[in-house]
Amino acid sequence: MRTIDLNADLGESFGRWRLGDDAAMLGVVTSANVACGFHAGDPTTLLEVCRAAAAAGVSVGAQVGYRDLAGFGRRFIDVSPDDLTADVVYQVGALDALARAAGTRVGYVKPHGALYNAIVAHEVQAAAVVEAIRLVDDTLPLVGLPGSVSLHLAAAAGLATVTEAFADRAYSPDSTLVARSEPGAVLHDADAVTARVVRLVVDGVVEAVDGSDLVVHADSVCVHGDTPGAVALATAVRRGLEDAGVRLRSFTQSR
Amino acid sequence: MRTIDLNADLGESFGRWRLGDDAAMLGVVTSANVACGFHAGDPTTLLEVCRAAAAAGVSVGAQVGYRDLAGFGRRFIDVSPDDLTADVVYQVGALDALARAAGTRVGYVKPHGALYNAIVAHEVQAAAVVEAIRLVDDTLPLVGLPGSVSLHLAAAAGLATVTEAFADRAYSPDSTLVARSEPGAVLHDADAVTARVVRLVVDGVVEAVDGSDLVVHADSVCVHGDTPGAVALATAVRRGLEDAGVRLRSFTQSR
Amino acid sequence: MRTIDLNADLGESFGRWRLGDDAAMLGVVTSANVACGFHAGDPTTLLEVCRAAAAAGVSVGAQVGYRDLAGFGRRFIDVSPDDLTADVVYQVGALDALARAAGTRVGYVKPHGALYNAIVAHEVQAAAVVEAIRLVDDTLPLVGLPGSVSLHLAAAAGLATVTEAFADRAYSPDSTLVARSEPGAVLHDADAVTARVVRLVVDGVVEAVDGSDLVVHADSVCVHGDTPGAVALATAVRRGLEDAGVRLRSFTQSR
Amino acid sequence: MRTIDLNADLGESFGRWRLGDDAAMLGVVTSANVACGFHAGDPTTLLEVCRAAAAAGVSVGAQVGYRDLAGFGRRFIDVSPDDLTADVVYQVGALDALARAAGTRVGYVKPHGALYNAIVAHEVQAAAVVEAIRLVDDTLPLVGLPGSVSLHLAAAAGLATVTEAFADRAYSPDSTLVARSEPGAVLHDADAVTARVVRLVVDGVVEAVDGSDLVVHADSVCVHGDTPGAVALATAVRRGLEDAGVRLRSFTQSR
Repeated sequence: MRTIDLNADLGESFGRWRLGDDAAMLGVVTSANVACGFHAGDPTTLLEVCRAAAAAGVSVGAQVGYRDLAGFGRRFIDVSPDDLTADVVYQVGALDALARAAGTRVGYVKPHGALYNAIVAHEVQAAAVVEAIRLVDDTLPLVGLPGSVSLHLAAAAGLATVTEAFADRAYSPDSTLVARSEPGAVLHDADAVTARVVRLVVDGVVEAVDGSDLVVHADSVCVHGDTPGAVALATAVRRGLEDAGVRLRSFTQSR
Repeated sequence: MRTIDLNADLGESFGRWRLGDDAAMLGVVTSANVACGFHAGDPTTLLEVCRAAAAAGVSVGAQVGYRDLAGFGRRFIDVSPDDLTADVVYQVGALDALARAAGTRVGYVKPHGALYNAIVAHEVQAAAVVEAIRLVDDTLPLVGLPGSVSLHLAAAAGLATVTEAFADRAYSPDSTLVARSEPGAVLHDADAVTARVVRLVVDGVVEAVDGSDLVVHADSVCVHGDTPGAVALATAVRRGLEDAGVRLRSFTQSR
Repeated sequence: MRTIDLNADLGESFGRWRLGDDAAMLGVVTSANVACGFHAGDPTTLLEVCRAAAAAGVSVGAQVGYRDLAGFGRRFIDVSPDDLTADVVYQVGALDALARAAGTRVGYVKPHGALYNAIVAHEVQAAAVVEAIRLVDDTLPLVGLPGSVSLHLAAAAGLATVTEAFADRAYSPDSTLVARSEPGAVLHDADAVTARVVRLVVDGVVEAVDGSDLVVHADSVCVHGDTPGAVALATAVRRGLEDAGVRLRSFTQSR
Repeated sequence: MRTIDLNADLGESFGRWRLGDDAAMLGVVTSANVACGFHAGDPTTLLEVCRAAAAAGVSVGAQVGYRDLAGFGRRFIDVSPDDLTADVVYQVGALDALARAAGTRVGYVKPHGALYNAIVAHEVQAAAVVEAIRLVDDTLPLVGLPGSVSLHLAAAAGLATVTEAFADRAYSPDSTLVARSEPGAVLHDADAVTARVVRLVVDGVVEAVDGSDLVVHADSVCVHGDTPGAVALATAVRRGLEDAGVRLRSFTQSR
């Protein structure tokens, strides 16, 4: 029986500002990428989402990012590797303390936004993130796009790695994601997205924008939760997988 | 043989801005109250000071503060107890991860600046700090002024407490510190300060501003390190204690 | 013919986080209290709301606050008067530059949240805010609660003052607002609120929680806009006033 | 008689953290590039340095930077042009209000650190800075390196431009600065630097690292002030220029 993990970004409110429906998403996903305070997530929000994740049996991951509240971590910052390593250790430790206070713990690391994108190819920053995980807890897996420099370096350093696919994103024929600025980059039809994810998980194949079939291996599928429509889409994906006989389980529980 | 701990605030640089001579102070003190990023302390600075403290055999404490870089944590903020609890857990966890990456760990909690002063009497904030320690690690002692509400609540919650005296501050006849705004509140003469600390540690007595003798119990003595003169003063205090046959040892090692 | 100003807080989004429906509220109010970046409001948001206010003919005021994004400016901070004065000058200048870039200008100052509440009675902080207005532009009126220390000090310094009432808040028999923590402090029924505001504006009288009538003079009425229901309530208040023959006009245009 | 401007970065303290000797530098330079709060400079510091600059007859410029206190504005951030434009308008307005409160005004714009370096070549960010100056006050000149994209775009938009040379930096044969990471990039000998600056100002020629002579036109010479040695170096440069009969005068006074 095929198993898969569903992950989403949570804990991205900040003080007075609410973002996403964390409670609803915790009923859908098996892994919660919880913000760590640098791009989003005040400590009270983070403690609450960790408590809710613990209650729901959802795994907690550290969604580390650049120090950039104003830019929500979506802007590349040319941080030096020493600073980036220390920033990541700091964030993972902060979230882990809140997670433990909530009766759970940080089970993996998934970088956020511009940092996630940067370390697909930026060797120096990728190595800095890997070094941070090695320093803070070398049993934590790193989540990333298949083929990323970050995953290569993590594996070379003896860390576990987790590959992910994106439920609602179009793929280029070379297996990269179509840039958000391109038309058709983001898919919105729940039935189409569901069918696509089921095929991806069951057959390991996804159709690219040119109609060709790509072989994609993913340990986890990322869904989004920061709009009401996104919650419905994520729910549809989960039901589609269950109907296809796929078992939903966090990769941290499979280990 | 009498033993005493000497503590000082370290890790209070931030990015481009340097404050204090951490390296020099690590040769003097037995406990380093390391900032946690909310009032001071970027992660790179914190990792460096933790590494240096580990190398010097100096204990590391979490110097948690209000979220106020512009005010250096010296301004009272009317934070709600839930937010304060989460803020303290976050800070302790962040520093502990850096400390563990450096081969040591957080061994105690000493609030900073306005938070330190507030919880001498502010029951709600004192309880929030105690709750944070209980949540993050209930083996961590809380450092404070003798008679503080925070220490009473900590003891009532089953936490260990550590009392401290201030090497260079004048005492009122009621055992409180003379306010910094008063003349003579801060002592500068190295010989006088040293003699005073030796008497305090050996005899448990300190002279108040009116000439009366106060009985003061302190597990630790706080010295300052953020000016060149302060390093010399701290060094004189340490030598005076050693010459008087007092053994300098962190209270975390006495446990 | 009686005229009145309607004011509301706008520009309180920050980066990725949206708050309130600024576009809708600009169709209702005559004065927009625009955040200045310290408690909310990234520069891009502020420039956009200033452009929209200019297009709608709505006056722009500087909604200055404590430097506290995490607390949304709702937590008292014990800022020194020199720092508070400089903080307010900085915020007014920043917003005024964006307002001028948008074809309008800052026409008044209305402190936000905990700062607003503090300077009802805190003489030192009230004087610091007044000094800031005197330094930055002594033609700017200060908006506040009738009887506030801040308004007294502003008038004594030769500044113009503007008093305001709150559309949806209950009043104590001594003319102060019922604390939000009390039951019944916030009114929600649109018809009742509208009737209340009309009576307040036309007759200068509002009923207190004990049923007694209070004489209240207000140059402006504050409505809220950060929830969809609040927009509807503000719209109802405006229509009620217009139906009662009251002319809605910014106090800055009456001068 | 040849005239030249000497500029330096000032106002770069933040809260508890002091940087540079602003008072000493105001006795040396004719233009003060004052930080605006995004990379450094709390409002109280900025107001003080503006008051001191006004008293010393030194021109004040807005040293705008990326929003990055932790990185001191020295890390490239991939800010969108709309956000960068609004960020620059905000900063110029904030400083101008403090400058006016101090009896002077912002007389020019000189971007700081990574932003300065970026807009030498990054067309989108350069255009965003130019647009900000156009929006906030199109009489403000932009200071930059000769040949910068930012200066080209500023001139094309009808803005005044000011070119500068660096007193203590080595030049490559193509007139660019030798990267700080290269050996010999920064010159330290006061006599050599002074002779170099005098030749640059009087003859318009500077020797490159390969021994060739470069023709360099500079309206201003940048000196540094953030170390005691730097103050002495800046003072030597000023005296050398005066001894060579060069008149020191701000470019804003020449206009």
